[in-house]
Formats: sequence, structure tokens, C-alpha cells
Amino acid sequence: MSQTSRDDRLVSLRRDLHRQPEPAWREFYTTARIIEEVERIGVDELYVGEDALSGEDRLAVPPDAEIDEWFERAQTLLAEQEGSDPEIIEPMRGGYTGAVAVLDRGEGPTVGLRVDIDGLPRPESDDPEHVPAAEGFRSETGAMHACGHDAHATIGIGVLEAIVDSDFAGTFKLFFQPAEEVIGGGSAMAQSRHIEDIDYLLAAHIGLNHPTGEIVAGIGEFLAVTQLEIEFEGESAHAGAQPQIGKNANQALAAAVQNLYGIPRHEKGGTRVNAGVIEGGTASNIVAEQARVEGEVRGDTTALRDYMLDRAHDVVEGAATMHGCEGHIEEGASAPSAESDAEIADTVAEVATSVEAVDSILEYDALGGSEDATYLMKAVQDRGGKACYVGIGTDHPGGHHTATFDVDEASLPIGVDVLSGAIRRLSESGHRTN
Amino acid sequence: MSQTSRDDRLVSLRRDLHRQPEPAWREFYTTARIIEEVERIGVDELYVGEDALSGEDRLAVPPDAEIDEWFERAQTLLAEQEGSDPEIIEPMRGGYTGAVAVLDRGEGPTVGLRVDIDGLPRPESDDPEHVPAAEGFRSETGAMHACGHDAHATIGIGVLEAIVDSDFAGTFKLFFQPAEEVIGGGSAMAQSRHIEDIDYLLAAHIGLNHPTGEIVAGIGEFLAVTQLEIEFEGESAHAGAQPQIGKNANQALAAAVQNLYGIPRHEKGGTRVNAGVIEGGTASNIVAEQARVEGEVRGDTTALRDYMLDRAHDVVEGAATMHGCEGHIEEGASAPSAESDAEIADTVAEVATSVEAVDSILEYDALGGSEDATYLMKAVQDRGGKACYVGIGTDHPGGHHTATFDVDEASLPIGVDVLSGAIRRLSESGHRTN
Amino acid sequence: MSQTSRDDRLVSLRRDLHRQPEPAWREFYTTARIIEEVERIGVDELYVGEDALSGEDRLAVPPDAEIDEWFERAQTLLAEQEGSDPEIIEPMRGGYTGAVAVLDRGEGPTVGLRVDIDGLPRPESDDPEHVPAAEGFRSETGAMHACGHDAHATIGIGVLEAIVDSDFAGTFKLFFQPAEEVIGGGSAMAQSRHIEDIDYLLAAHIGLNHPTGEIVAGIGEFLAVTQLEIEFEGESAHAGAQPQIGKNANQALAAAVQNLYGIPRHEKGGTRVNAGVIEGGTASNIVAEQARVEGEVRGDTTALRDYMLDRAHDVVEGAATMHGCEGHIEEGASAPSAESDAEIADTVAEVATSVEAVDSILEYDALGGSEDATYLMKAVQDRGGKACYVGIGTDHPGGHHTATFDVDEASLPIGVDVLSGAIRRLSESGHRTN
Amino acid sequence: MSQTSRDDRLVSLRRDLHRQPEPAWREFYTTARIIEEVERIGVDELYVGEDALSGEDRLAVPPDAEIDEWFERAQTLLAEQEGSDPEIIEPMRGGYTGAVAVLDRGEGPTVGLRVDIDGLPRPESDDPEHVPAAEGFRSETGAMHACGHDAHATIGIGVLEAIVDSDFAGTFKLFFQPAEEVIGGGSAMAQSRHIEDIDYLLAAHIGLNHPTGEIVAGIGEFLAVTQLEIEFEGESAHAGAQPQIGKNANQALAAAVQNLYGIPRHEKGGTRVNAGVIEGGTASNIVAEQARVEGEVRGDTTALRDYMLDRAHDVVEGAATMHGCEGHIEEGASAPSAESDAEIADTVAEVATSVEAVDSILEYDALGGSEDATYLMKAVQDRGGKACYVGIGTDHPGGHHTATFDVDEASLPIGVDVLSGAIRRLSESGHRTN
Repeated sequence: MSQTSRDDRLVSLRRDLHRQPEPAWREFYTTARIIEEVERIGVDELYVGEDALSGEDRLAVPPDAEIDEWFERAQTLLAEQEGSDPEIIEPMRGGYTGAVAVLDRGEGPTVGLRVDIDGLPRPESDDPEHVPAAEGFRSETGAMHACGHDAHATIGIGVLEAIVDSDFAGTFKLFFQPAEEVIGGGSAMAQSRHIEDIDYLLAAHIGLNHPTGEIVAGIGEFLAVTQLEIEFEGESAHAGAQPQIGKNANQALAAAVQNLYGIPRHEKGGTRVNAGVIEGGTASNIVAEQARVEGEVRGDTTALRDYMLDRAHDVVEGAATMHGCEGHIEEGASAPSAESDAEIADTVAEVATSVEAVDSILEYDALGGSEDATYLMKAVQDRGGKACYVGIGTDHPGGHHTATFDVDEASLPIGVDVLSGAIRRLSESGHRTN
Repeated sequence: MSQTSRDDRLVSLRRDLHRQPEPAWREFYTTARIIEEVERIGVDELYVGEDALSGEDRLAVPPDAEIDEWFERAQTLLAEQEGSDPEIIEPMRGGYTGAVAVLDRGEGPTVGLRVDIDGLPRPESDDPEHVPAAEGFRSETGAMHACGHDAHATIGIGVLEAIVDSDFAGTFKLFFQPAEEVIGGGSAMAQSRHIEDIDYLLAAHIGLNHPTGEIVAGIGEFLAVTQLEIEFEGESAHAGAQPQIGKNANQALAAAVQNLYGIPRHEKGGTRVNAGVIEGGTASNIVAEQARVEGEVRGDTTALRDYMLDRAHDVVEGAATMHGCEGHIEEGASAPSAESDAEIADTVAEVATSVEAVDSILEYDALGGSEDATYLMKAVQDRGGKACYVGIGTDHPGGHHTATFDVDEASLPIGVDVLSGAIRRLSESGHRTN
Repeated sequence: MSQTSRDDRLVSLRRDLHRQPEPAWREFYTTARIIEEVERIGVDELYVGEDALSGEDRLAVPPDAEIDEWFERAQTLLAEQEGSDPEIIEPMRGGYTGAVAVLDRGEGPTVGLRVDIDGLPRPESDDPEHVPAAEGFRSETGAMHACGHDAHATIGIGVLEAIVDSDFAGTFKLFFQPAEEVIGGGSAMAQSRHIEDIDYLLAAHIGLNHPTGEIVAGIGEFLAVTQLEIEFEGESAHAGAQPQIGKNANQALAAAVQNLYGIPRHEKGGTRVNAGVIEGGTASNIVAEQARVEGEVRGDTTALRDYMLDRAHDVVEGAATMHGCEGHIEEGASAPSAESDAEIADTVAEVATSVEAVDSILEYDALGGSEDATYLMKAVQDRGGKACYVGIGTDHPGGHHTATFDVDEASLPIGVDVLSGAIRRLSESGHRTN
Repeated sequence: MSQTSRDDRLVSLRRDLHRQPEPAWREFYTTARIIEEVERIGVDELYVGEDALSGEDRLAVPPDAEIDEWFERAQTLLAEQEGSDPEIIEPMRGGYTGAVAVLDRGEGPTVGLRVDIDGLPRPESDDPEHVPAAEGFRSETGAMHACGHDAHATIGIGVLEAIVDSDFAGTFKLFFQPAEEVIGGGSAMAQSRHIEDIDYLLAAHIGLNHPTGEIVAGIGEFLAVTQLEIEFEGESAHAGAQPQIGKNANQALAAAVQNLYGIPRHEKGGTRVNAGVIEGGTASNIVAEQARVEGEVRGDTTALRDYMLDRAHDVVEGAATMHGCEGHIEEGASAPSAESDAEIADTVAEVATSVEAVDSILEYDALGGSEDATYLMKAVQDRGGKACYVGIGTDHPGGHHTATFDVDEASLPIGVDVLSGAIRRLSESGHRTN
């Protein structure tokens, strides 16, 4: 296959996925397209649905009704699409998205690559300067690939193709992980049996403010994170006639939001807090009876994250008390922090020097964010394997998670070349000894 | 017709309406049921849709998609219901709900009665102590008749029946007004030609913390009100990786809500403010780009309401500035304040003394809330007619607008007797002279 | 004595007092000047210090050190002033300010007049448009007569002089009450024996947005009020090095202030809340360990004031909890609401018609504020006497309690004439019968 | 001199200073005691007042009245103290505290040591477990040595004595810097001529959570800091009678404080914000016309500090707008960040190994706070000299700046030995060559 036709195919797949972003545990169309590509390439084993991950360890799973809505949407779309089979997503019914593909190439180490595939629940820019808008592959779902997971899935397919065509010896496992954005899928894949025999695990992320042509061989300092579901329960009242009998959940929420962001900074390192989604009340003339926040706290370390959690509980309790409401925090999905192993990072850096389009290599960078790849990395490292999180630079006009985020598609083949090169090099280093 | 069968029918109609509460401009089933009843009774003229009110003067109309959804719901319901015709709601398509029925009984004054018919967008209690839950007529729509408009529509039908059966001389017009809760329908009906020749207008409300058997002959001191749609526009960012590039619309909203409620009290009289509905942001890990509030301000007088409005603008502008956002208030529907004319109130009080089930009569009470009946009252009063707002006491376990609001159905015939008695008595007093 | 020399003397006394405003329980110079004037006029009995009021019933007494500082200031001032004797204030040492003067004129009713004498702890404007600044009698103490109590004391002296010169029959008691602004002196005077035999009590206030020449014969609807001393106790920390170990009392205070003003309005009538004085922390780089608020809540009725109190306790508790602090409200001085008796008001109105400079008489007005004269009024009324609070209009450029408040000195003789006229007229009506 | 008597003298001096803490630019007694000690030891030159620092470069100087009050206090104290001369502080009148002592020991490098001497404006614990309380040397001034500057001054004296007694060759300059806590004195000393010829500069701090016996050879990562004086100007009103005409500066302040702490964290590193001192309003029943905050912002870098500053301006402007007030930030004293030179740090570490009581040596630590020693360090480094900030561990029960901070006096001789040893060692390394 010529390089050009390979690159065109990567672009084409990425744009197809970009047009159909699906949020966490609803990546039905996305997984279907991945399966189609994997089957086109051919592998030894392909696991889908509950065979791919531990169903009961899924975190942050949305209500059934929402899952079903997206399921039906994907079915309709696949039915309309020539060459696609709507039946392909049957095993995923109920939100068991994602897949694991396995290549068995005889004696040699087991090397894994994890890519994530979900979109974000936010609208995409329709600014004519925004390339997906200008070139006709803007989101059609209301959600958005605003963090490049469309590129991740595409690079995964590209790597698989490259490994198939190579002299790789050993076992290669490719994890298409759902629900990263809600920190929901990493745990479930880390608990699956597929992770158990991995000697070397690679994970990758595009962008992160690194330009096209730059590779970060090993990324670390992942922030520990816990998601929060905060609820206030008050009492409603007619806002005009009897405001004094109300216990205003919206006032409690506002006080809480103001003071959550005001939790003191910590000497030991970075902390984060976000009240990302707020909603409360039912009508302009009713004192709000209920209000809720979807938020999160993070820390450079687990201890710092826990400090934020403790303080958040105080804030919510106090805010509720101020307005005679009940306040409650449900702690949701969380991910640990992690570090990349230098052994793999060195290999990545070495390989990157031989990839022509790479013009800058950083040996190490801090993430300053969270990632549930850390669940898989820890699972591998705890069993004596090595893990490494690689950054693939891409020029991105808007920041991650914003309406104008986009990737420079020239970075897709770079990602494929660096990762597949590293995987092949690692296969030469043999089994781990412990 | 025996009194008992009349009372049973009132209860039956009220429960039917209670089971199908529809919010503002979506009262399709409700209006259909009203039409059925009116046609059963028989009137000289019946106006529906744009014939009943001034379409362009409708305020606070929801998005088409929401209107259509409720329209389809009502169609389905009517199609399933024996004896009903789904076609009946065709003229209301697009949100032209409500109706005006006219009885022409020869020489005499034109007397109007206005009742409102919409429900509230809030869930109803499923507590087994809550009578509608216990007796099986709890809301099936997700909305709730939490302010007794089901009783109002029912009383309107009862009054029509009573007038038809009486020696009433003159013209009787019965206004079934939609969208009171959003202050949306009063203006539209006040601008219709039907209001122009009214000599005497009655409007009525059930409950208002008055017990069953108590009548308030004339209610006044309606609070002036303006609804607010507040929007904050910021910039999104990844909450973990780059919180500093965000302009947090949720923080701006929280600051605004805190300080809206803190607008200083006013020496000249009562004021109100409510941030009834809040929502903002798209995901727990994204700094919120947009947030909005549906709220309202009120005042004992228009000047006091305007004072609140002025201060609210300062609060929103300042809250936005604090977080680098744009803030904007769209002033929505508003209603003036009004007073009841003593001439009608005296008649109501007089009639009430002769209604057996009435055991307490208040000549006057202040509402302490707002009502867009004031638009119709002002329209009549400005042309030299008289208007009066009557309170029909009912034992209600929960407060107005709360999940456990309910009416004592014994108050339905009381309302019918007092109002129809007053309307007949007014017909005897002849045309107004001016 | 000619009218002109009388008026000049009133102006001169008022300006002397205006130049030396002294806050609550520190009215040493003021009381001394009053005593001098009373002694010049001559009375039968004069009570000062603990003989004038019930020392243990004084409310809102400041710390000894502050009292002593003002005591010394007054001593120095009196020592420097020709004809004054610093020893005159000895009985007031420790904050027992105020005086009661008694004229015994034989058979007849006992009529009282209460005037208050304290200044406010706020700076006075130095704007050249501000008359006291322009004409050289601006405050020299840092405090300010921003509510006209300088005029009240002066009118009291004028009335005494007028009664002495008249045919008044009975007993006249003149109460110079300290500490009205902190609601501190009314209770103490109401508990003294001097109030016990009063048949008719008058109290008066200048201004209140009524112009010169207008008299309000009876004022009512005093707001009930309770003063609050709110304290937050947290933990200090170095704000740069270890912010996380701090429990920030200033953050708690800010949350409390925001939410105190946000206590919901009440359907039953007017409420007020004010966080008038705030202070917290010790240095810019220390997390504040302590913070406090001097505030107040009011209500049209005692029940409304209590509603505000209850909610304020929730707010303070919640605000403290949010930031890991201890929060506490100490309820301070409070005053009841009260009404004027029409019997006296009618007399005042009648007399006022005969005072040439009076060009407008209101029979009644609502205060919309609080006053601890209500303690004395209630004490008299509870024993069967009558009480009335009279408004003496004056053109005042700035609002009460603001830096540019001032009185039109033309209103001083009007006040003297109306009040002394009413007192004489009341003496003619004989003893109360009960 | 025996070691023991030396140690006793250090303790005695430290306790004397501890008992008389004086805040910034008011260190009159403290400087007097330092001068007495320096003169006892004997030096070649001693500079005091404007000869010691650049008077016009003093930052954060308090009002004259406060300075004078402390000046008089110190005069009285010195007059009462046997062997002291109140005249000694004359050159410091007006707030020119601090001193520079110079030893000229012939050929050799110029080595400087800077110690700071001011206390904090906060009360000291009177808990009997607090050693200064238990052993009778608790603060008598209302301020507190809550950051160990009493120990710093004492160690400075101890070092001077040690150098005098040694074979040190070159020039030794000892800077007793005032006003560190308000970032006020570093700039003034850095602008004086005394700093110009320094080859090696040492500065030192005790504690910082390092235990007795631990030395940190070089401290870096000083936070850049800027102090803020925030003012809100509104309009006063009577809080009961006319709350609506007020523009409440206390409400504006509360909104600002809430939102200052809520300025978003930054991906690039640590930030800090503190509203350390707040005050506003004049009386509980007056709407506050003025309110102010003394605060600060910090950042790991100047850029981060400036980010906080920018955001703080938005917050203050917005908070003022919300309540119709004027808001203003006056940027006060600020200090840059700085790093220690490894060359000196290595010497310190080397020397420390030979000090018996030292049992732990850290080569480097981050401060995580700010220090205006950075002004002097930068002044030296910019001219080609070297600078180093040394940590002297001490067991301290309470955190820095808290009421129970105290130092383990066993650390005093350790500090003296390590610093004097390093100064002697540096003198051996000769002049700098550039």
C-alpha cells in the first residue's frame, strides 16, 4: 500500500468518526466503524461488549434511556450506510461499548496499545474558519470530538495495519477504550483479563499544546481526579406570594459554587476544582426545590485530591445549612495519578528520531490533567510490566474541550509511525523476566 | 339537573384536567376538553386559536419543538379517548391555545369571566397522603396543576352551565386564558376584540391560603412583575489542564444569583426576586462557556418592580465582569399591578351571603403575588368598565406551586354559585353609562 | 425674651452640640451642656447618671476603654471652655450619660417629653456646600450628628423654657435619652422610676423626609429591630507558604454577608438586614483567624424580625461550616414596634394649626425604621397612659445617617412651639382616670 | 567566652526581642537593642536610619500617627530600662528603622548577611502550653514574633560576635532589615550603597517546617508577590428607613472576597491570593459607604503573579459594579522571585557537616512563600555577586504566622555556627573576578 493512500484512508476514517462523536458508553457507531476496520485488516481475536471489558466495573454510566437513544441512532445510521450492518452493535446494547483486538505472532512479549474513542457532550463551532465546518465533517450528533479521540481511534487502526504488515514477534493487543472523558472506561478495561499478561503498555494522546512534528516520549504527573455529583434539596414555594416558606436550592447551589472555587490553594502542589454543569429549579416563579452540580476535584497527588474532597464536603454542607436545605455529595468516578516508565519512553524517543516528519522530541512532560489510562498503566505496572504514555503533537487552533478544537491531520501518520515503530522495537526486547 | 350530579360532574372534570396538566401555550388537551364541555352545554359563539386571542401579543412562547411535542401528545391522547376528536385541536397548532365562549341573551350589560387553564412545569408529589396520588388522578404529564387552574377551568364550565340555565339578560363572555403562569396569555387576550365591550369583568382564583367556605370579594395589590432571561457567555477550557484560559460562566452565574437575592429592600413597599431556573455548562471537566437563569422581579408597584430591574442589571453586569464573561438580561413578559372595583366586590359579597356553604366573607385582601389577569382588568377599566378579582377559599394542604398543592373539591360548587350569582346580579344593573 | 433672641439661642446651642457629636453612652460633653442649660433655666429636680436611668438595663454599652477616652476628651474640652466645669460629668463616669429634668407645677397630669441626644460613629462631609462645613460648626470629634439628635436636644431645652414661662399645671418631665442609635438607652430609661407616673408621653423626631413647616401629628409602624454581633473564629496560617492549613474567617464572613442580604423577603411585610460594620484579619499575608460583623435585622412586626433572626442564624452557621470555622451570633439590643395614641396625636394636630410657621399637617405616617422610644411608649401605654411620636419636618439635603445630613434651623422653633403647645394643652385635660 | 554563656546570651536576647515585637517600620526598640549589642561587640562602622537604607524606597510605610505611637512606646520603654538610652532611636524617627554594621578586616571579599527583624500585627497565644506564655516572655506589645525574626536578629548578633573573634579576612556587612512582613524593607536596603560591593550575600530563615538540627543549604522558588489595597466607595443610607438609596460597600467587598479566592488555578504553577484584612462600614444601622481589603496575590513566577493581578482587577471592578460602588485596587509592595546560587549553597552544606548539632542537611528546598530578601539577592546577583538563602531548622509547635508559633532555642547556636562558618569559608575563596 502506498503511503499516500494510507494517509488518505486515515484522514477519511478520522473525519467519519469526527462527524459522529458519541459520548461515554454510547460509542455504538464509533465501535462499529472500528470493528469494520479491524475486520478489514484481519486479526486473530476480536472482543466486543462484555467480552472486552468488565461490565460491572464501568463507572459513570448514564441512564438507560439515554444509552438506548444513542443505540437507536447508531442502528439507524448503520442501516442507512452502505456496507454496514446494524447487527454489529447488538453485543453493545446497554452501553457495553469498546473493543479489544489481538494479533498473535508467536513467541515474544505481549505489547498493548490503548486508545480512547469517546466524544464530549458539547456543541461544535460552526465558525467557517473551523476546518470541520469549512470542509463538511462537523459533528452531526450535538456532541463533539473536542479532545481528539477521533484521531486516537484512527491512529489505533493505523498502528494495527502497520503491525500486521511487519515482522512483529509476540502478541499485540489493541484496546479501544470507551468513556475516558467521564473517567468511566479505564477502570473497566483494567479489570478485564486482557490486561493481565501485558509486558509493555503504550497509551497515547494527541495535541496537549505540542505542535505537529513534536513527540513527548513519556508523559507523567497525571492529576488524580474524583468526579462529584452534588445535590441540594430544599422546599419550593411561590416566589411572589410566599417566598419565605421556600428553602431555596438555587441559592444553596450558588453559595456552594462560589465557595468551591475558593477552597484554599495547597502548598504541596497543584489542585483543581470545577462545577462544570449546574442546574436547578423548574420555573421562574417557583423557589427552586432541587439543584445539582456535576463537578470534579483534582490534585497533583491523591493526597491533594483528597484535601480538595474534604473541603468540598464542608462547602456543600455549609451552603445547604445557610439556606435550610439538605446537601449531599456523591463521589463518582476517580482515577489515580501515574508515571511513565523510562525504559519504554527511551524506546519511543529512539524510534521517533528515525521518523522523518518528527522534528522535535521531548523526553518528558507533565500532563497537568487526568486520564483513566492510569488505571491500565497501574494494572500493568503492579504486575511487573512497564507502561508509558506518549504525546503526539498536533497543531490545534482551539484548546482541548473547546468548540474550535481540531487536529492537524498531518499528525495522524506521525502517530502511527512512532507508535508502531516503538511497538516493533519493544517486541525485540523479549519477555519481561519477572 | 340535581345538585349532586352537577357537583360530581365538576369533580370528574377537574380530575380529568388535573391528570393532564399542560404548561403555558401547550394546553391542547385542556382546551379540547373545555371545548367539548362548552359544546355539550351549548353557546352562541365559540372562538378558538387565533380567533380567541391576539396571536402576536402572546408572551413567553416556548420553542416550536416543545409546543409540537405537547401537541402530538394531546393528539394521541384524544385519539385514544372515546368520544374525543383529535382534529379539535388543529386550530391551536403552534401554540394558540385557549378559548372564548359567548352567550347572547339579548338586552343587558356585557359581563365577562376570565379563568386560567395552564399547569406548572414541575413534578407532582407521589406521597400516598397526597389525594391525587391516593385517588389515582395524579399528573400523567410530568407537569402539575400546582396552582389550581384545573379548578378554575372547571368552575368556568360550572358557571357557564348556571348562566345558561338562568334568567341572565345581556351578553356573557367566558375567557379560558392560557399561559398565566408565564404571564404570557393575559396580554394576548387583553388585546383581542372580545374584551372591548365588557362592562363588568370578573376573574377568580382558588385557594390563596383562604379556607373552604371563605370568599374574598375583591382582591387587589397585585405585584407588578417582569420575567428575566439572564445569559452569561464565557469561554470554555479543560478544567484540569488549562483552567486559567476559561472564563467561567457558572462562576458568573453563582455570583449573580447570590447578589440578586441581596438587592436591598425598599422603604416604599414589598419587592421580590427569584432565580427560579438555573443551568450552565456541558460536562464536569469543562469550564462552563454558557449559563442562564430564568428569573423574575416583582414590586408592590411598577416603580418598585423597576427599581429591582435596575439593580438586577447592575448585578448581572458586575457578575459577568468579575469572571471575564458577557452578561445579558432579556426582559420577558411582565404584568402591571391592579385593583378591584368596589362596585363589583360589593355585589360579590352580597351574593356570597346567600350561598349556604359560604361561612366567611372578606371584603378585601391583598394578593401579594402577580397575575396577568391585570392586563384584562386594566383593558376593561381603561375603557370605563369595572373589574374585580375574586378569591374562592379552598383548604389546600401544600402551598401554591409546591408538590403537594391540592384543592378541596367542595370549593368547586361554591365558586360556581358565588360567581354565577354575581354575574346574574350584575346583569340586572344594566349597561354602564359612560 | 424676644422670639428672635430665643431662636438665636436655639441655633447657637444646636451648633455647639453639632460640633461635638458623641456616640452612644459617651455623650459626656453633650449631657454637660444640657445640664448647664437646664440649670440656667431652673427646674425642681434634675437627675443625672444612675439617678436618671437604670444602669443595669443599658444595652449596647461599648468597652470601658472607649468610654474613658471620650470621658477624658469631654473633661479636657469642658476645662478649656469658659464657664464650664469638668466636674459636672463625674456622675456619668463609666457611661451613665443622659439626664431627666422635672418641673413640679402642682395639680395636674404628668406629661413627659423624650428627646435623644447621641451622635453616630461616622465622619461628616467636608464639602463646602455642606452648611456645617461652610459655616464652621462641622464635627470636631470624628463622629457626626447625622440624624438630628443635636436638634432634638436643643428643642428639648426650648420646650423646657417655654413650659417654665407658661401656665402649665401638673408635672413636666423631660427625658434626655442617650444611646438611641444603638438602641441602647430606651430600655434603661423605660426601666427607671421616672417613667412610672407619666400620663402623657411625647417623643419627637426631626426630618424623616418631611419638609420644614410640616408636622406629623402621630407616627407609627416602628420596625422591630435586633442588633447582631456576629463572630467567626477560624485558624490563621501563612497565606503564601501554607494556605491550606488556614480556616479563613474572612471567607466565612464574606459568604455570610452575601447570604444575609439574600434572606428571602416575607409575604407578611417589610423586613430589613444590614451588615453595617465588618472587620477581620490582622495582616495581608496571614489567613484571617477572626472576623466579625456588627449588624441588625428588622421587621414590620416582631414576628417578621424573628423570622429574619432565625434565618440569620442558619446563614452564619452555614458560612462558618463552609470554611471550617466556628460562627456565632450574639443578639444585642432590640426594640419592639409601637403605635401612637390618636388622643395625643389629635391634640398635636390641633395645636399645630395655630403655629404660624406650620403649613402642612399629616395626621399619621409610618416610620419605616426603628426607635427605642418604643420602650418608653410601651412602658407608659402598659400602665394605662398615652404616648405619641411626633414628626417635626425639616429640609434636609442629605438622607438620615449620610455624610451630608443637616437640618434647617428654622424648624427648631417650630418644634418647640408645637411640642410645648401640645404639652400645655394636655395639662388642661387632667389626670388619666385609670 | 564559654559556649554555654554564649548560648545563654543568645536565648536572653531572643526572649527580650520576643517580648517586644514591633511591626514593620516601627522596630524602634528592636533596633535599639541591636545597636546596643553591636556596640558591645564593637564594629568599624554602624549605620542607622536613613544612613542604613534608601528612605524613599521604603514600601508599605504605615501612617505617621501609628509610627509615632510606637516610637513613643519605645522611648518610654528604653527610658525605664537600666543601661538604655532613649536617644538611641532619634535617627529612626519617622520610621527609618533597621541598621547596617560593617567589620573591615583588610584584604578579602565582601560578604554580607541579611537578617530581618520585624514582628507581625497579630496577638500571641496565652495558652499555658505556649512556651513564651509559660516562661514569661510572651509579647507585651499586642504584636507577635510569629515568624521567628526575633531569632533572626539574635543569630545575626551571634554571627557578628563569631566573626569578630575569628580569622575572617575581608569585609563583613551585617544587614538588620526592617519591614520584611510587609515586603517593605528589602527594596530600601537593596537600593542603599551598602549592597553595591557585596561579593557573597547570605540570608537566612529559621523554621519553615524543618526540625531542629536540619539545615537547608540553598532555598529557592520564592513566590513573586504583590500586595493589594482594595477600596470600595459606595453611598451610605439608613439601613432601616431607606435601604434602597444605599450603595453598599460591604456587599461589594463580600462579593469581591468570595470571588478573589475563586480566581481559577493556573496550569503553569502555584498561585496564591489572600484577603488578609477586611474592614468596612461605621455602624450597624448604616449602609456601609466605604470598605477596604488588605490583600496580596502571589505566583511561582512573576507571570503567574501578574495573571492573578489581572484577574483580581476584574473581580474588584465587577464586585463594585454589582452594588453601584466604585472599586479600586492600589498595587502595593511587591517582590520578585529568586534562586540561590549553588556555589554558596555548597559551601554552606560543607560547613554544616562539621557542626555537631546538625544532623540533617538538605541541599535544596523550595520556599513556597515570598521574601523581600529577593530584592537584595537580585541586586547582588545583577552585579555579578552570588547570593544564597539558608534554612535553619527549628522545631516549631505552631505554623508560621499563627498564635502558637515558637522556636526551639537550641537552633540559635546552630544558626550562628553554620552561618559564621560559611562566611569565614567564603572569605577564603577571595574576591569575585568579574
